[in-house]
Amino acid sequence: MASPQKIYVAIVGVGLVGSEFINQLLSIPPLNSPFHLISLTSTTRSLFNHTNPITSASSWKSDLAASVDRPDLPKLTKQLSALVSPTQKVALIDNTSSEDVAALYPTWISAGISVITPNKKAFSGDIALYEQIVAASKTVNGGRFLNEATVGAGLPVVGTLKDLVATGDKIVKIEGVFSGTMSYIFNEFSTGTPDGPAFSSVVRIAREKGYTEPHPADDLNGFDVARKLTILARTVTHASALPALQSFAAVQTASLIPPELEGIPTGDEFVARLPAFDAHFAAMRAAASAEGQVLRFVGVVDVQNGQVRAGLEKYPTTHPFATSLGGSDNIIMFHTERYGARPLIVQGAGAGAAVTAMGVLGDLLKLA
Amino acid sequence: MASPQKIYVAIVGVGLVGSEFINQLLSIPPLNSPFHLISLTSTTRSLFNHTNPITSASSWKSDLAASVDRPDLPKLTKQLSALVSPTQKVALIDNTSSEDVAALYPTWISAGISVITPNKKAFSGDIALYEQIVAASKTVNGGRFLNEATVGAGLPVVGTLKDLVATGDKIVKIEGVFSGTMSYIFNEFSTGTPDGPAFSSVVRIAREKGYTEPHPADDLNGFDVARKLTILARTVTHASALPALQSFAAVQTASLIPPELEGIPTGDEFVARLPAFDAHFAAMRAAASAEGQVLRFVGVVDVQNGQVRAGLEKYPTTHPFATSLGGSDNIIMFHTERYGARPLIVQGAGAGAAVTAMGVLGDLLKLA
Repeated sequence: MASPQKIYVAIVGVGLVGSEFINQLLSIPPLNSPFHLISLTSTTRSLFNHTNPITSASSWKSDLAASVDRPDLPKLTKQLSALVSPTQKVALIDNTSSEDVAALYPTWISAGISVITPNKKAFSGDIALYEQIVAASKTVNGGRFLNEATVGAGLPVVGTLKDLVATGDKIVKIEGVFSGTMSYIFNEFSTGTPDGPAFSSVVRIAREKGYTEPHPADDLNGFDVARKLTILARTVTHASALPALQSFAAVQTASLIPPELEGIPTGDEFVARLPAFDAHFAAMRAAASAEGQVLRFVGVVDVQNGQVRAGLEKYPTTHPFATSLGGSDNIIMFHTERYGARPLIVQGAGAGAAVTAMGVLGDLLKLA
Repeated sequence: MASPQKIYVAIVGVGLVGSEFINQLLSIPPLNSPFHLISLTSTTRSLFNHTNPITSASSWKSDLAASVDRPDLPKLTKQLSALVSPTQKVALIDNTSSEDVAALYPTWISAGISVITPNKKAFSGDIALYEQIVAASKTVNGGRFLNEATVGAGLPVVGTLKDLVATGDKIVKIEGVFSGTMSYIFNEFSTGTPDGPAFSSVVRIAREKGYTEPHPADDLNGFDVARKLTILARTVTHASALPALQSFAAVQTASLIPPELEGIPTGDEFVARLPAFDAHFAAMRAAASAEGQVLRFVGVVDVQNGQVRAGLEKYPTTHPFATSLGGSDNIIMFHTERYGARPLIVQGAGAGAAVTAMGVLGDLLKLA
């Protein structure tokens, strides 16, 4: 479709994902691109120039570093709002993981600015914020919100679920391995045999490879999975009997942190003390293996039974969660009325800057 | 996003997929729906009423049957063209598998009408028609073409590939089981053991279950797979060194029809004579099994080596094509630069009226 329309793009957050996103965006051949990158905001600097957009992948970093302007989101809101018109769209890309930025989504969307983001906070936090966002997007001149990259990064998960729901399919259950970190840990730890590496050593190696957060408890608490489940559950809620989740804290989340290691301040101390609990995890592995099963940390949105839960579950060694997973893959199964006997499955890397930025850019392309 | 915009919808083809599509479309709550279903065309009748849209899932069939109007696509083209305006979109849904209807896409798209279809003919036939379609969609007031349901029915395959390409990922190889019929036949026939049911009996049962065309040679010739590969390859072509396919006939397709059974006029005779070739297929199965492999009829778009092929290939019994497939599932793996070590995988039912109609309706929702 030929589009004479202009789409102004403002980016908040220029870390790993943000930088990769900028590079992908600027790689689109200018002739085919309706996008004009007019603003960057980091934690310390900001740039805004809507008459002379940023086009150089090699100089935006130094241009931003040279700016004397401080980050000022209220001012940015005014500047962007003034650009919204019937022939000009404005997209704000939030590449942070900040609650403060997320709290501004209703303001932006009400002003006609579309918000595109991999930031899970707004969609998995307090339901009041989420409902404000949805309400703002339904106003006559409201912007849209697009959040494909909040679950599974670039994998087609949120969009697939929205299509299923919008076309009238009935979701029965969504079940998956939603954390790349948890995927890696249990793909290594539990392969169906009674023995294997110690749990603590798998976690230590995962941390050394950069697959975990600096403090592994931030992965093992299951909150990342609970947030993703909240996003999916809320997408389904209005079309089902699933109760609305007040926040991700309402997900039944079975943390893997041993109670004795709760609240340990540093990742180093946590990893040093984890071996004391190896026997506990080894016993679970042996019990699963005796039943021909493996352990996987999964998330489940069980629509039929009105339950959303995250935790360690057992799967037969013939199940795709056992046979098909490897590395730090995500896998998501949609059990629906139309995909009845056999689920719709999406699988692949669910984390990393390149694929996350791709999910964000895919959403931006949908605006065009 | 609140949309004051009207989208007029005209449907050509009201068979299994067409009927299911109409029912899904009319199930969208009217308050949320920008869609106005204004025209139906079957092989013998047509209806057009843009001031009084069709809203009843229970009466459209009898209304169409009672119409005295014959199908008249040139007249429909004029009627629809007159409705295109900056605030009104028009979508033509082609739910036929007709080459004649496909030949009209450039006319429609040039007139600003968007074409949405599961019909593979236009996108996998002569490249001249395909290029006319692409060119028409790039004119200033051209309509769009959306063809998610041409590959994998409702599975997110075409859209995922378009997103990968549009965001700058490099496609290395696309590899998959693209035919539900072929999937069923080989999931039953080749499970990794040296023995198993006779090939002819698997085909006969598949035919009895309605999984094959009335004449199984229409599946076993591999043309359905070749057409799907052509659609995917053309989506990749402009972003790679892959040579343009003049038509699906340019795909290297290894037919499963024994040469002696080529041109047999009826499916009944074909199935009756197939047992004479059981030993041939059994020997291939035994040879694969001896190497720890299974047989699968796959399609491959090998971008790196500039090759597009369809045929029987061997996969280890630990490969997802062996472990993860069942029923008549499709499975598609995207090997790309970003999904490097491990591919992005989409799997699920790739045929059937409900999921095909869903793929079409998902595309229509993208117009809104």
